[in-house]
Amino acid sequence: MRMAELSAESGVPVATVKYYLREGLLPPGERTSPNQARYSASHVQRLRLVKALTEVGGLSLASVGAVLEAVDGDATPHETIGVVQEELAGPPPKVSDEAAEWATGLLQDLAHRHGWKWHGAENRAVANLIAALATAKELGHEQLAERLDEYVALALRVAKLDVEVVTGLTSFDKIIEAGLVVTVLGDRIFTGLRHLAQEYVSFEVLNRAPGD
Amino acid sequence: MRMAELSAESGVPVATVKYYLREGLLPPGERTSPNQARYSASHVQRLRLVKALTEVGGLSLASVGAVLEAVDGDATPHETIGVVQEELAGPPPKVSDEAAEWATGLLQDLAHRHGWKWHGAENRAVANLIAALATAKELGHEQLAERLDEYVALALRVAKLDVEVVTGLTSFDKIIEAGLVVTVLGDRIFTGLRHLAQEYVSFEVLNRAPGD
Repeated sequence: MRMAELSAESGVPVATVKYYLREGLLPPGERTSPNQARYSASHVQRLRLVKALTEVGGLSLASVGAVLEAVDGDATPHETIGVVQEELAGPPPKVSDEAAEWATGLLQDLAHRHGWKWHGAENRAVANLIAALATAKELGHEQLAERLDEYVALALRVAKLDVEVVTGLTSFDKIIEAGLVVTVLGDRIFTGLRHLAQEYVSFEVLNRAPGD
Repeated sequence: MRMAELSAESGVPVATVKYYLREGLLPPGERTSPNQARYSASHVQRLRLVKALTEVGGLSLASVGAVLEAVDGDATPHETIGVVQEELAGPPPKVSDEAAEWATGLLQDLAHRHGWKWHGAENRAVANLIAALATAKELGHEQLAERLDEYVALALRVAKLDVEVVTGLTSFDKIIEAGLVVTVLGDRIFTGLRHLAQEYVSFEVLNRAPGD
């Protein structure tokens, strides 16, 4: 297909497609004349993936580049998920040393009990988790941390389901891509479902005004 | 306490504190002389909350203003959680009409089966959920949607735990604040735990290179 059709199929404007080509986020098409090229279904799919990573995942183009490099290289699906988690995490917010130490201790202990590898705060996903727990403590809401084991048990069940969804696919390329989809879209979808469920569950118990 | 101490206690720079005072995100202190005021522990807590909403939740100051208005008004904890969900959601990404219709049908059916109130896409949290599911379909990864019921069952259990954490508190003000904390920090914490769990669960099954 020509550029115009590629743009229409993927929903990405022509100017943006050209930009992605220049930046190497989209592989060049097959040249048919000095100023024309032919694109295939794989180009459409790549553009849709870039769109999902930026618009739903909120990733910068630099982060998308890092993710696609893993996808196109010989990274395993496990490693690719690691890269996308790192890019999704972004730089962690600043918290007090005291709260950060408390949260780190909590997570280290957790990792130890579950037999998880402990990466420490140089892993951005871990650093963000530490910062979120530390912020809860700074606000005086440690009660969230008291139920951490129950949250972990549920997170493990979600992750097992995620991996089942991914491994249900037969083609290796599809598995890598599904790893991205389950991480990037899966985060949004689960958070969205949790919000709907919170609304439903909290309606009865939390819908009273002060003094009612 | 004086402004300098307020800044040190909350970890928010003096210039930012002054900006929040001008914008009405922080109530004025008790005036002790024409150019001095005294602040209390409630000011420290409010600043920490603004910090959590912006730095961990990624909310704009306009969104923080909307959330604090609900907190300070006579909204119930349930309504306050609704406001913060809406502000966290942001404008949804664009998807094709066909994929959006498919996702909307899926969610409507789901809401019907679970007895959830159906808000439709004018609710931004719902609109974002629709867009995320539609994007999965556009990418040819509907397999995520096939397991939606299982994700919903787990999301319900997480939400029940969230509400237990919130209602375990005795003071009404604390309950409202905990609703925010569980939503804003809870999203980050659960997503972080899910990522750690994904890493653990996927290590065995997804750590093979193509052709292994």
